[in-house]
Amino acid sequence: MYLGSVPNCDCLAFYNQRCFIDLRIMRENIELSTREREELLDITDRVRRIVEESGVRDGLCAVYAHGATAAIMIQENWDASVPTDVVNFLHTLIPPGVWLHDRQDNNGDAHVKAGLVGPSETIPVIDGELGLSTWQGVFFCEFDGPRRDRRVIVTVLDGAP
Amino acid sequence: MYLGSVPNCDCLAFYNQRCFIDLRIMRENIELSTREREELLDITDRVRRIVEESGVRDGLCAVYAHGATAAIMIQENWDASVPTDVVNFLHTLIPPGVWLHDRQDNNGDAHVKAGLVGPSETIPVIDGELGLSTWQGVFFCEFDGPRRDRRVIVTVLDGAP
Amino acid sequence: MYLGSVPNCDCLAFYNQRCFIDLRIMRENIELSTREREELLDITDRVRRIVEESGVRDGLCAVYAHGATAAIMIQENWDASVPTDVVNFLHTLIPPGVWLHDRQDNNGDAHVKAGLVGPSETIPVIDGELGLSTWQGVFFCEFDGPRRDRRVIVTVLDGAP
Repeated sequence: MYLGSVPNCDCLAFYNQRCFIDLRIMRENIELSTREREELLDITDRVRRIVEESGVRDGLCAVYAHGATAAIMIQENWDASVPTDVVNFLHTLIPPGVWLHDRQDNNGDAHVKAGLVGPSETIPVIDGELGLSTWQGVFFCEFDGPRRDRRVIVTVLDGAP
Repeated sequence: MYLGSVPNCDCLAFYNQRCFIDLRIMRENIELSTREREELLDITDRVRRIVEESGVRDGLCAVYAHGATAAIMIQENWDASVPTDVVNFLHTLIPPGVWLHDRQDNNGDAHVKAGLVGPSETIPVIDGELGLSTWQGVFFCEFDGPRRDRRVIVTVLDGAP
Repeated sequence: MYLGSVPNCDCLAFYNQRCFIDLRIMRENIELSTREREELLDITDRVRRIVEESGVRDGLCAVYAHGATAAIMIQENWDASVPTDVVNFLHTLIPPGVWLHDRQDNNGDAHVKAGLVGPSETIPVIDGELGLSTWQGVFFCEFDGPRRDRRVIVTVLDGAP
């Protein structure tokens, strides 16, 4: 229990409903597997579904990629050429095989890419929906795949009073 | 209404004032137009004003750029040479005209830039003010302008008890 | 005081305990000094400690670097070669001495690096612990050191009802 003493008037109903049942943060994991060494996977629909199921009308949605060789990128999701352009660009900018860390894991490039793109994006929740613009999508960035057990943590924060 | 039953003692006053009037998230849009294909627009004062008008003393301010060819960058705002350096750097690193996506929209470079910089930054609110350092400013990054209808969504989260 | 009128039934106990004592945001600063012009400093343990001391079980931890020539990067913290790879990569990509802003401060490269990496990362808090993956660490990125008075602002947001 949360409090030492509980109000014993009608507020008990309020207390139970408002403060104990009404969670303010909902968290859910997206589990995924990847097929390529480097790819961008569109997870927009899965993030949208978590927001809708949370019932939150107005708030924030924090998306976080687990894994030091992965990241989250907000990117156009209408045309598959855009994620391909991103993968090709990062592959040329940060090529494999030339890093100090390659002596350990042979994935130094994946770490540099992941750090540069970053694992976290925070998106507004507006009228019960993920507040992306028309062409924005949420992408999981794989830089050291294929992996069978990738995870994205989605936290929906309720801003309602 | 929020609850099925409402407390009918003096707590009603509390209930009304504390829980229904005291919003925990304030959200406001910044609408802007851009003049160049690529530019950084200083929106620091507009974000500051939203934080001040929210009345929030301690919390977080989440800034989010709508549009898959735009982004938010925290950058020095004292000397105009810094945003120019950023625009020139990104233009050289990610030049127009060489992307798969150019066959559709001719703006493949804008998408790669937007994805790399990212649309979201989350800044602390401290003693009622935006918790930037002395030289940090908030910039809207246009990568596919000019546009007349750009939008930044500012969500101020109240951390007060 | 927060409200004009205070409930005068047993709810006062509830009111005092629940709404005034239970803080929803804890904020703490990490102060640090840097030794090199460019380096990544592992602050994972200090961020972890702030989260543990906050007592928050489920929520979010927003990490923010003060300073327009500094940034926050989530990166592998097991092998020192990774931060070194990152520093070398950024130094080559964004070399000193070739920027418009160098006429003012001679640190144009530091601003471009800081803007690209970004000062904010938002990490889930799960079961009272910072929700990093096994190899993810939190790094303060110095791009214009050495400095004696760097600051990171850590805001822990309580998602408990």
